[in-house]
Amino acid sequence: MEKRLNLLMFSGEYDKAMAGLILANSARDLNIEVTMFFTFWGLLLLRDPEKIDMEGKSIYEKMFGVLTPEDVEKLPLSRMNYAGIGKRMMQEMLDEKEAPPLIAFLKGARKKQIKFLACKLSVEILGFKQEEFYPEVEIVDAKVYLEDALKSDIQLFI
Amino acid sequence: MEKRLNLLMFSGEYDKAMAGLILANSARDLNIEVTMFFTFWGLLLLRDPEKIDMEGKSIYEKMFGVLTPEDVEKLPLSRMNYAGIGKRMMQEMLDEKEAPPLIAFLKGARKKQIKFLACKLSVEILGFKQEEFYPEVEIVDAKVYLEDALKSDIQLFI
Amino acid sequence: MEKRLNLLMFSGEYDKAMAGLILANSARDLNIEVTMFFTFWGLLLLRDPEKIDMEGKSIYEKMFGVLTPEDVEKLPLSRMNYAGIGKRMMQEMLDEKEAPPLIAFLKGARKKQIKFLACKLSVEILGFKQEEFYPEVEIVDAKVYLEDALKSDIQLFI
Repeated sequence: MEKRLNLLMFSGEYDKAMAGLILANSARDLNIEVTMFFTFWGLLLLRDPEKIDMEGKSIYEKMFGVLTPEDVEKLPLSRMNYAGIGKRMMQEMLDEKEAPPLIAFLKGARKKQIKFLACKLSVEILGFKQEEFYPEVEIVDAKVYLEDALKSDIQLFI
Repeated sequence: MEKRLNLLMFSGEYDKAMAGLILANSARDLNIEVTMFFTFWGLLLLRDPEKIDMEGKSIYEKMFGVLTPEDVEKLPLSRMNYAGIGKRMMQEMLDEKEAPPLIAFLKGARKKQIKFLACKLSVEILGFKQEEFYPEVEIVDAKVYLEDALKSDIQLFI
Repeated sequence: MEKRLNLLMFSGEYDKAMAGLILANSARDLNIEVTMFFTFWGLLLLRDPEKIDMEGKSIYEKMFGVLTPEDVEKLPLSRMNYAGIGKRMMQEMLDEKEAPPLIAFLKGARKKQIKFLACKLSVEILGFKQEEFYPEVEIVDAKVYLEDALKSDIQLFI
């Protein structure tokens, strides 16, 4: 019987997103089914930078849009970010080892039949629109997450 | 057979606490049994603001009591807190969508037969007293957590 | 049949490391098998302070070595670190209750047949050497982590 991995992506920081996406990609290579449920800051990983659209958003939603990076490569580190200097250093270290950047792991995951779910309540609170996300993203509520997690062999909150 | 969700609430930040409590409430709506084990900063969610009592506490315990908010609505965000401005913005965004605040999810959870456990070692180190917590909180050690987690279908560290 | 606990140690902050190591030690006392997989900042827990060696490292690897504490007791708190003042306060509170410091829980874990795994990709990116780690640390890839996690009854991302 197929094994399943369920990741709840809450944080949306560069290093934690990297950890989650490396696990997701590795799991697919082992034929493990993968669901990623994105909520709160995690939703910043799902926006297509070419589709971001401020029309009809409230002042707070626009401010939130301006304060958060459109490009996942600009997400901060969870530690030692040092106003972006630590982050830049980490990217140089990735480069030095020819390790792919975050965006490459995200693109990889999008090609590997990973289920991408976005938390309905978070999407509403943060004022995102379905059209701003990658087309494969499905907006669902916490119950759908729980039902998927119950069927899974591994569940992590990242 | 009944399904079980076990949440280890470590962080005690506004947004992470919200995520945990939304999962807990949603799980109860699906008839899933829920245990929440609070440790370290997570204990800040369990204090009854009307019962906080500094008597007999050491200097450090008193300082810790003063530096941490009595009211869960004053807990900081895990990201973009910006000395409380980002936090205020998030609360306005919740308001705008008529989404309930954290305290409402906490009250909901308290009414839904969720098991509230507090980590004995953390309670001792941080100098909290049983009487400062909501009456349903049970103080237990890490082994009780592990035994509950072993019986559960989903375990998350939040 | 033996029960298993699998901890993915990502954060490497003092309080989160403490939580993970207390769970690991308590689990061993209950005869639960324990695997700890250390990645990113979590690797800071595995270095033997007497074996740290800058020879042959790139500029960035050396900078990273200088910016991160050799001694786990110097790791920051995940919250209220206040440039080390909050951290110092927490250590005084541990002392006051005669609770062991982080290094004691780490030593305990090393004596209790806990499997210590280090993430190969993180080790390479951060430029650590096998010889800098405690001798029992095994460097493995994400697939080895996933296979261990699949066999486990509890998996947490810390």
